[in-house]
Amino acid sequence: MIVVDGVHTEVVRALDRGLMYGDGVFRTLRMEQGRAVTWSQHYAKLGADCARLQIECPARATIDVSIAQIAAAQPQCVLKIVVTRGPGTRGYRPPAETRPTLIVASSPLPQYPQRYYSHGVKARICATRAGVQPRLAGVKSLNRLDNVLARMEWDDPEIAEGLMLDPQGNLIGGTMTNVFCVRDGVLCTPALESCGVAGVQRDRIIAHAIRETISCEVKTLSLSEALNADELFVCNSVIGVWSLAQIDTRTWTPGPMTRRISAALREADDAAGA
Amino acid sequence: MIVVDGVHTEVVRALDRGLMYGDGVFRTLRMEQGRAVTWSQHYAKLGADCARLQIECPARATIDVSIAQIAAAQPQCVLKIVVTRGPGTRGYRPPAETRPTLIVASSPLPQYPQRYYSHGVKARICATRAGVQPRLAGVKSLNRLDNVLARMEWDDPEIAEGLMLDPQGNLIGGTMTNVFCVRDGVLCTPALESCGVAGVQRDRIIAHAIRETISCEVKTLSLSEALNADELFVCNSVIGVWSLAQIDTRTWTPGPMTRRISAALREADDAAGA
Repeated sequence: MIVVDGVHTEVVRALDRGLMYGDGVFRTLRMEQGRAVTWSQHYAKLGADCARLQIECPARATIDVSIAQIAAAQPQCVLKIVVTRGPGTRGYRPPAETRPTLIVASSPLPQYPQRYYSHGVKARICATRAGVQPRLAGVKSLNRLDNVLARMEWDDPEIAEGLMLDPQGNLIGGTMTNVFCVRDGVLCTPALESCGVAGVQRDRIIAHAIRETISCEVKTLSLSEALNADELFVCNSVIGVWSLAQIDTRTWTPGPMTRRISAALREADDAAGA
Repeated sequence: MIVVDGVHTEVVRALDRGLMYGDGVFRTLRMEQGRAVTWSQHYAKLGADCARLQIECPARATIDVSIAQIAAAQPQCVLKIVVTRGPGTRGYRPPAETRPTLIVASSPLPQYPQRYYSHGVKARICATRAGVQPRLAGVKSLNRLDNVLARMEWDDPEIAEGLMLDPQGNLIGGTMTNVFCVRDGVLCTPALESCGVAGVQRDRIIAHAIRETISCEVKTLSLSEALNADELFVCNSVIGVWSLAQIDTRTWTPGPMTRRISAALREADDAAGA
């Protein structure tokens, strides 16, 4: 089901700047029992990302109306919320008066094998590097060709995620996830100052670590440092947390920190929904 | 006027991957007297750019039908031709079977002041740097937020173009143009191996230089090297060639090489249309 600017439809204007230039941002989250999980955090990110592009973010109440339309029809789904700068005339310069386009769309909740959660997943290192653009770093913009090209690198259904590096070979994240590693009890996640997307789950995990006084470093993380970690996991708002069980010939078993973080996020989700 | 997949319409599917991820490419060219100027070269680029993204480019004859529809209604216009990977399901991975979307749209020919051609234009240096992504370098993809952000930097109608640098401070091109400089009779244009768009006019100018045995270098070009050039000009398929008359406090008068190149392109266009 798709709701565009409050109207149930299948289409958008062909000259929307979201299509012409990728001039917009988006969020992807779970809808469970008609409730958009962690929507407050996603709305905050949506607003912050819109601000980075100087797009006026629709009011939360406006988006809530579209979410409610979808919740009534599909209480269990993946929710995608897109805000573009709206229709435009030709040329990179936005028109003097813009009216952002709001697209709220549902898709089926993916059914991942239970072993992804109990034993972890197999991942690979992508040859496609994350593009460097500090003005967009961290932002979940509609310019996502890096991720598309990286995801096109493999067909093997056994490989659940691909990790992307920056041009210097530092780990940035998965094609659709953020990544964390654990070494000697210290949690670590890549700094996203020149590329990558800073997801809601990443923020939640950092906040959880601070609350629980788990040491957590946000820093430049070389691939070898990550591969030598005791634990490695990826996260996003649809999958939750997946422990990485194998990358090439290296293997790990799900570790205590990954289990602890994963359980904490699930508990927080359940508490919010109770 | 907009023609999508051969049908006169205003809309496209909301979940087209062109909108969701900027997963597509485009061309912009002039239609004059019902003739798409330099269309052969643009079609070759469209095909090459599609190939870079592994998108199946529509046959030229298919696009020709849509162009003819527009030519009949608007024989003088700017023609924009967009090819996306087509509608998709959620997720970066393209579906196993994709059907590319073809959008052909017209917009009014811009009316630039005559002095832009006789005296040159004022330009500025953008603070927004060109994003680095070798996998997309040269490709005119729908991921154009760098250009949008750079173009948003100024409102002054006296400034016709902004020049963009790479993170190392080397000149890449204008927000909507390619750039050339001339020093001691040698033509030079930035190499576009890690960022930028390699336009049709740029190719034509390089080809013209080779034919006319004008020395032409395609290389890393520092900003200071460019600013110290005898002549500096920008080009694209809509504007043709604009000599740069001023950047900050530096000024130039249109030089002989710029005039010669500009005249040669116009003559070739006229000859093709005759």
